[in-house]
Amino acid sequence: MILNINAAHGNCPVHIERGALKKAARIVGPERRVFIVTDSGVPTVWTDCLREQWPDADVFVFPQGESSKNLEVYEELISDMIRCGISRNDCVVALGGGVAGDLAGFAAATYMRGIDFVNIPTTALSQVDSCIGGKTALDIGGIKNIVGAFRQPSAVIVDPDVLSTLPERQLNAGLAETVKAGLIRDPELFEIFEGPDFRDRIEEIIYRALKVKKDIVEADEFDAGERKLLNFGHTFGHAYESFFGLERFLHGECVAMGMMKILEDPALKERVRKVLEKLGLPTECEADPERIMELIRSDKKADHGVIDMVLADDPGKAYIRRMSIDELKGKL
Amino acid sequence: MILNINAAHGNCPVHIERGALKKAARIVGPERRVFIVTDSGVPTVWTDCLREQWPDADVFVFPQGESSKNLEVYEELISDMIRCGISRNDCVVALGGGVAGDLAGFAAATYMRGIDFVNIPTTALSQVDSCIGGKTALDIGGIKNIVGAFRQPSAVIVDPDVLSTLPERQLNAGLAETVKAGLIRDPELFEIFEGPDFRDRIEEIIYRALKVKKDIVEADEFDAGERKLLNFGHTFGHAYESFFGLERFLHGECVAMGMMKILEDPALKERVRKVLEKLGLPTECEADPERIMELIRSDKKADHGVIDMVLADDPGKAYIRRMSIDELKGKL
Repeated sequence: MILNINAAHGNCPVHIERGALKKAARIVGPERRVFIVTDSGVPTVWTDCLREQWPDADVFVFPQGESSKNLEVYEELISDMIRCGISRNDCVVALGGGVAGDLAGFAAATYMRGIDFVNIPTTALSQVDSCIGGKTALDIGGIKNIVGAFRQPSAVIVDPDVLSTLPERQLNAGLAETVKAGLIRDPELFEIFEGPDFRDRIEEIIYRALKVKKDIVEADEFDAGERKLLNFGHTFGHAYESFFGLERFLHGECVAMGMMKILEDPALKERVRKVLEKLGLPTECEADPERIMELIRSDKKADHGVIDMVLADDPGKAYIRRMSIDELKGKL
Repeated sequence: MILNINAAHGNCPVHIERGALKKAARIVGPERRVFIVTDSGVPTVWTDCLREQWPDADVFVFPQGESSKNLEVYEELISDMIRCGISRNDCVVALGGGVAGDLAGFAAATYMRGIDFVNIPTTALSQVDSCIGGKTALDIGGIKNIVGAFRQPSAVIVDPDVLSTLPERQLNAGLAETVKAGLIRDPELFEIFEGPDFRDRIEEIIYRALKVKKDIVEADEFDAGERKLLNFGHTFGHAYESFFGLERFLHGECVAMGMMKILEDPALKERVRKVLEKLGLPTECEADPERIMELIRSDKKADHGVIDMVLADDPGKAYIRRMSIDELKGKL
């Protein structure tokens, strides 16, 4: 399946297909000179799959994790591209999660003021969400994504088979974002998780989740509010992430708990709880309410004590309601 | 005088006027929060002129010279912007030569994925040439401009009065590029230098030189060859720069010698010699011909032993002729 992203600065086809990784060279061009950027956490079976298709490709491996998204690793990466003689007509291929996409994407956006970039996400979260949107970034001085560039890849290749080497917990946490996508705009996507065979429908789940994001991001070129819908579950989710640090919960797990916290309709809340439990995701946690409210107050999306919250009473029909932080307190 | 640059991603007014620096806040907005980036070589009188207009402005000063155009200074700059709380709606103002424009422009292009940028060039070379074109860059691993971004400033402010604090040699070297502009496309600009009072017509000279560059850069959106005209005198010029290093000759001086080397028509060559001598610019040098040819052969614009040379037989009528490196040898 191909999903076409129509961005302001050009289009980007997203190829979603089991086994798509084996076709990467066919999609990008077997004769292209490619520079592969991947992290130490990506199983070699996937890197080797690309090496077989481009025997002459250069491969840059950086240490797994957000802490690699910095200027030091960026300088090493650019220096390696120079050493390999990468030219204006060559192509940077990211193989990894969101960090690989951000780092390689920013390198591609800036090397010689911009060369071709192809993104091959390998984690659940990057496959269902961060691989589209056209944002690249680095962290500086502890500030996440403080520098970056808008950069639409020339192609995104999403191979659900690659998820087979992920720990189940990571896979499920990534799927939390697809449950979110269903609740926002696609009731049938949400209902897939209520059925018995959702694990067999992963390709469809990814396609539908990316389609929700694509529709919202494209609509946002005309309506600056629409994109906020993607924050469903994220106001509390981000507060939980900050409260617990990065050790105890994964991003998707915090989003799961954040969605449960904001849902009001008892019937829908019960349906969502069942789905999240099926996915082995947490639905609640013990966090100091005072501290959580403080964190929400300092959220960059909060504006003088009010915040636009995303709510949903029926699957697929999320909407935005401006709430005061005090009003939000009642939910704790 | 205002020259409007019509770029693919938005327009940029270039304000060219004696005393324009004093009007910077009126042009940019006195209420704007600005972050000024300048180098240690810019006389404090000009920085103070901006501080008076924006008393709350933050000022970042980096050591003068090309060696500051690196990731280390970039990181310091970004960290300082974070420390000062620069937000998405604020504006980076570059006050300096090409290095300040490149460094501050790249910071503005990438900070929060792009914030506003105003360029105030203070050297002759940056006023007559590099302040327009929309390119920003950093050097990595000794490779000049290896990373960067296309970034049109929201305004450029060119104040010829600022040139008063420049050493005369630097001023004259910068004017070499305006002689070049005249020879390429503007015979009246070239003739200004043949008249007695050219030093009083600096505002007009800058305007005309930038107009030549603007016309060519804009035309290049449709014709990938046109931009090459700007390289008049630069094939030999760059070779001289590499041969002599950065100590003996300034860039504009190398361009002056490079133009003399490529001119064929004896009458025009004599006219150009007189103009360059009037400007105190060198018209020839002793450089090992074999080494010069080697340098030209390795020029990134040379392609398998042939190179597009820019020639002119009449002022204002430059044209491109593809020549073999061997043919070029005959000129030495």
